[in-house]
Amino acid sequence: MSRPFRKVAVAGAGAFGTALALVAERAGASVTLWTIDAAAAERMAESRENSDFLPGPRLPETIAVTSDMARLGDADCVLLVVPSQATRSLLTGIGATLSEDAVVVACAKGIEQETGALQGEIVRAALPEHQIGALSGPGYAAEIARGLPTAVTVAASEIAVAERVAATLSSDSFRAYASDDIIGAELGGSLKNVIAIAAGIVEGRRLGESARAALVTRGLAEMSRLGARMGARPETFMGLSGLGDLMLTAMSRQSRNTSFGIALAEGRSVAELTAPDKPLAEGAFTAAIAARLAREHGIDMPITSAVAAVLSGRLALDEAIAALVSRPLKQEIA
Amino acid sequence: MSRPFRKVAVAGAGAFGTALALVAERAGASVTLWTIDAAAAERMAESRENSDFLPGPRLPETIAVTSDMARLGDADCVLLVVPSQATRSLLTGIGATLSEDAVVVACAKGIEQETGALQGEIVRAALPEHQIGALSGPGYAAEIARGLPTAVTVAASEIAVAERVAATLSSDSFRAYASDDIIGAELGGSLKNVIAIAAGIVEGRRLGESARAALVTRGLAEMSRLGARMGARPETFMGLSGLGDLMLTAMSRQSRNTSFGIALAEGRSVAELTAPDKPLAEGAFTAAIAARLAREHGIDMPITSAVAAVLSGRLALDEAIAALVSRPLKQEIA
Repeated sequence: MSRPFRKVAVAGAGAFGTALALVAERAGASVTLWTIDAAAAERMAESRENSDFLPGPRLPETIAVTSDMARLGDADCVLLVVPSQATRSLLTGIGATLSEDAVVVACAKGIEQETGALQGEIVRAALPEHQIGALSGPGYAAEIARGLPTAVTVAASEIAVAERVAATLSSDSFRAYASDDIIGAELGGSLKNVIAIAAGIVEGRRLGESARAALVTRGLAEMSRLGARMGARPETFMGLSGLGDLMLTAMSRQSRNTSFGIALAEGRSVAELTAPDKPLAEGAFTAAIAARLAREHGIDMPITSAVAAVLSGRLALDEAIAALVSRPLKQEIA
Repeated sequence: MSRPFRKVAVAGAGAFGTALALVAERAGASVTLWTIDAAAAERMAESRENSDFLPGPRLPETIAVTSDMARLGDADCVLLVVPSQATRSLLTGIGATLSEDAVVVACAKGIEQETGALQGEIVRAALPEHQIGALSGPGYAAEIARGLPTAVTVAASEIAVAERVAATLSSDSFRAYASDDIIGAELGGSLKNVIAIAAGIVEGRRLGESARAALVTRGLAEMSRLGARMGARPETFMGLSGLGDLMLTAMSRQSRNTSFGIALAEGRSVAELTAPDKPLAEGAFTAAIAARLAREHGIDMPITSAVAAVLSGRLALDEAIAALVSRPLKQEIA
């Protein structure tokens, strides 16, 4: 087993960041949980609870909560857990603070709107001298924080780096598996949200569990096709960061993306569902980017394309459903 | 598109057989639905409903319901839809009646207790002169009968045979995809029931959706490993008859196998749950056979083996749970 990092910093104190701070602490690391919000940091340090985003679980005294950016400089492993669209500006802020030996792990899932970049690519561009990793896989923050058993993938270009990060986070209740396929791990986490919206549409229209299972199966196949073309390994999509995360997201009503699809199917408008006061369904933004990537790479992604067309108003929902649940008769595996 | 068969016989008038008779009728075939139970055949022919097993959907007059074995001799495509343990004796009864040109399609899922044989192997042994196929994939009889969208795999050693059967059954609401991997299609349908029991145990113990998603992901990997060793193609396990069927079964409370696992976790005994008056959970019988196959082929199947050990009384449930949700730290994809 690899030697774990001892000093972990978590940048971002939302639900998932807070859960990962607990994970690292349980695994034996010395943990700093950083947020840009000084008042929130003070409240958490005092109450030992993140009542805004993850009410309930107690934050042990061994987790230092701070809004002091300089504290990130001590860490030899930094987990980035801000919303995916905020990662670039976060790095502009904190980049110079980090120890040059620190491994930086992207933990958000999502493709950057403006550039189409994956989280790991953003980190690599901002911090070219650092070792980079990505964490992806099926895990709800509330379940992780409660210590329920969870398994995720930690990927890095160098497997030895991934193994050290995995060892840093792993305990009896949390298993991190190392992978060297960072593109595959990240793409799985992003693309699955679009398929989850489609699954929600099928559920919202009460088309049955059989139809949903077939849709999700075909969805994974199209994710995997795009991934392979973009340099990922197909088997990564069969693992925790692909199938595992897709299944959790697309088969659960806890998922914001599935709920978004259900609400669409029940007649709510895209404008209404993407209003700023609504919970963020990453897939609603990922759909157009993924459909564009599919076109650019010449990959057939009928489910993703149908969701993107519905969200942009180019396709009526009923026509999309016909596209989602029926295909011309040919061999299943192209 | 392949030329469909025109005359379809369905042997077995349970819920799934009745649903498949409706499927073939909608696809344009002339259909005979056969049951050994003369009184049931008479009632169905009269009432145009299978009120015992599939109450609700109306059986059109174009579906002939009969208990006359001789009527099977007309069919050029025969679907076998009796419980998997009864297939061998059914064939002893009807084998000589069938037209020698008829394609015979095994539609039950399950491995034969005594011999460890797959359904297709049983048919091949009993009817060596016939073309053989197997139907597998995610589909609940009640949903199929209502015409909700469903997609399944039809496999045969010769792809042309699979394509003709697929064309025979496919309509707007029911899509059958042809495959030449009959072992893979059948193994997926059988092995997934064991993983579904494990998923039910995780659910029954309230270990969380993250844990269940990780378990099902690892379950598919071990199914695929055994399949590859037994001559199936790994990608078949990523398709409808593998992942699709597993997802439907393991993520749904409609599934008898998942319900069985939940009941076990809630403290019911194996003896109680396998009593003759209880709904048949195929996975409870498949577990021991699958664990034996894993041993014989030198394949590591920790989830399947843990379920088999619990069912045979060799392992306490709590110890099995530890085995189900935690593994030594290594690369995820072996």
